[in-house]
Amino acid sequence: MERADKDLAFLLQYENVAWYEDGKVRILDRRIYPAKVEFVTCTSHTEVAQAITDMVTQSAGPYTAVPMGMALAAFECRGKSAAEQMEHLRRAAYTISHARPTTVKRMSQLTDVCLEVAERALAEGKNAAEEIKAHTIEMNNIRYSRMAAIGRYLVDMFPENGTVMTHCFAETIVGTMLRECRNRGRHIRLFCPETRPYFQGARLTASVCHDMGFDVTVISDNMPAFVMQREKVDVFTTAADAICCDGHVVNKVGTFQNAIVAKYMGIPYFVTGAPDQGHPTVDTVHIELRDPDFTLQAMGVRTAMEGVKGYYPAFDITPPALVSGVVTDLGIYSPYDLKRYFTDGNIGKDNLVV
Amino acid sequence: MERADKDLAFLLQYENVAWYEDGKVRILDRRIYPAKVEFVTCTSHTEVAQAITDMVTQSAGPYTAVPMGMALAAFECRGKSAAEQMEHLRRAAYTISHARPTTVKRMSQLTDVCLEVAERALAEGKNAAEEIKAHTIEMNNIRYSRMAAIGRYLVDMFPENGTVMTHCFAETIVGTMLRECRNRGRHIRLFCPETRPYFQGARLTASVCHDMGFDVTVISDNMPAFVMQREKVDVFTTAADAICCDGHVVNKVGTFQNAIVAKYMGIPYFVTGAPDQGHPTVDTVHIELRDPDFTLQAMGVRTAMEGVKGYYPAFDITPPALVSGVVTDLGIYSPYDLKRYFTDGNIGKDNLVV
Repeated sequence: MERADKDLAFLLQYENVAWYEDGKVRILDRRIYPAKVEFVTCTSHTEVAQAITDMVTQSAGPYTAVPMGMALAAFECRGKSAAEQMEHLRRAAYTISHARPTTVKRMSQLTDVCLEVAERALAEGKNAAEEIKAHTIEMNNIRYSRMAAIGRYLVDMFPENGTVMTHCFAETIVGTMLRECRNRGRHIRLFCPETRPYFQGARLTASVCHDMGFDVTVISDNMPAFVMQREKVDVFTTAADAICCDGHVVNKVGTFQNAIVAKYMGIPYFVTGAPDQGHPTVDTVHIELRDPDFTLQAMGVRTAMEGVKGYYPAFDITPPALVSGVVTDLGIYSPYDLKRYFTDGNIGKDNLVV
Repeated sequence: MERADKDLAFLLQYENVAWYEDGKVRILDRRIYPAKVEFVTCTSHTEVAQAITDMVTQSAGPYTAVPMGMALAAFECRGKSAAEQMEHLRRAAYTISHARPTTVKRMSQLTDVCLEVAERALAEGKNAAEEIKAHTIEMNNIRYSRMAAIGRYLVDMFPENGTVMTHCFAETIVGTMLRECRNRGRHIRLFCPETRPYFQGARLTASVCHDMGFDVTVISDNMPAFVMQREKVDVFTTAADAICCDGHVVNKVGTFQNAIVAKYMGIPYFVTGAPDQGHPTVDTVHIELRDPDFTLQAMGVRTAMEGVKGYYPAFDITPPALVSGVVTDLGIYSPYDLKRYFTDGNIGKDNLVV
């Protein structure tokens, strides 16, 4: 696929992240993006599962890759009886949802939805693969329109010629927020902490910002306090892996200390995303400890002597007292008043977009 | 040279850092230490200057390498007239003190002392090279006995089975403090932020701690808040590039934000070293901005896309309100009451050890 006039942020949208068509699923290879823009082509749902296992797609990518893999599974068994197709799809759902041990629960919710869509399609004599694909696109479009709304509310918080600090890679919202700045002609400059040990800030966020024509500077993770003070940062903002309904923010490790420092400096911290009904309070959050050796290397080169221990908490938890506002598609809420998001949006347990 | 029973911390003491003997200066190669313990041998003072320029010795190393280079210069011109020897030494002093542009002033103070020692030696018919070497050793021994005292006062602040967080590489004090723990049979475990972009925490501090038999864990620079909270850190401690007499601490970038986070957590921050009469207040401090591209790589591997900017402040400034105590060879002082250090020690401008 040619990049043509497309920007890097666009390449992270669903039609590039994972796309089912003509018995194939094409997945953007996030292991090498953005240094190279290449796609992995899967011709069976087991290959899709393997690609997810192999980290070909990461972060929010599996949320599209999983249902597109289910569309491919439906293609594989086309022409068989409805019962046989459903049996094939249930086995495929198991395989795909178990591609990574830590996300089985959320991925199973997605494959369950796909099974419902397929069952309805087969009952109505429709093409199950195309129906699953159409439903996936519809869900993504709802998600993107919500992201666009979040981007508008967030950019309202940026002063003209303002300085914005990020952390890690906020996925879709980075492109959304920068497009909104561009549309309004609002100039900002960005500082992106590199985000060790995986360098998502240096590799992804900074690339997307630069590619979209913004002034962007990468700093190491020990520099935010200096930079907030000396470079007069106006806003610190991140996305979240989860925003608990009690206002605690779960995000890439480092968010917590940057929020502490922002508070010390009098700089507001805005987190983007919807409150997560799966976490009524912070008590349901479990911090994943990853391979400790990963902190003993950088870009594949060993840094510490043999025998020294590593430690790799993937996330940390920022308490609501450090959060200036939760920027949602319905506006900006106090982290202490997130229940209002659900009443404002008339959102129940059944109409959430995963 | 064999390591034999010597520990890595010992290898950073002056007799290994830089040593003049028999017309040669041998310098520990800090560019590869501690992965490899190798020495560069210089047979002229210009080679010593070049080694300093080439970063063979770093941090406190040049404070020994410079006078040992002057001893070698004195050896080079032995047998000539006193006037010719002093002329040679003055030229050598210029060459050696100008090896690195940012440290000319402090290195010139050292070479000036060497010129005085040489002049006195020549007037008394003594060997100038040996006199300069003897004076260098004496100054270092005074410095080490002060470091040992600092180590004792610092370890008083560590609870038994305590957890200590460091930042960057505190040079001599790391070995001194750990030896003091060992002597008292006091068990501690250490967390060392890796200290980007040069990884001194991962490469040097953690190596010395492990080599001396302590439980040590390397974390990335975005993890201190999480670790202070979850692993119940008792004390945060660093050395300083300068402790201003008004209590501001100049040290490796990241110290400031770790001190902010420690304050938030209720964890004390102790800085080790003597107040610097060269900085009566923070107003005389200039923060050196180094090659910005250095933050766009890690261990020599590029992290960010071409066109993205870097930013590399070498140091930051921690205000006295974040400093729990300045641990000196005379005891622990409030950062707001450092003038008492000079009256307690009866220290004037003329009897400071550089």
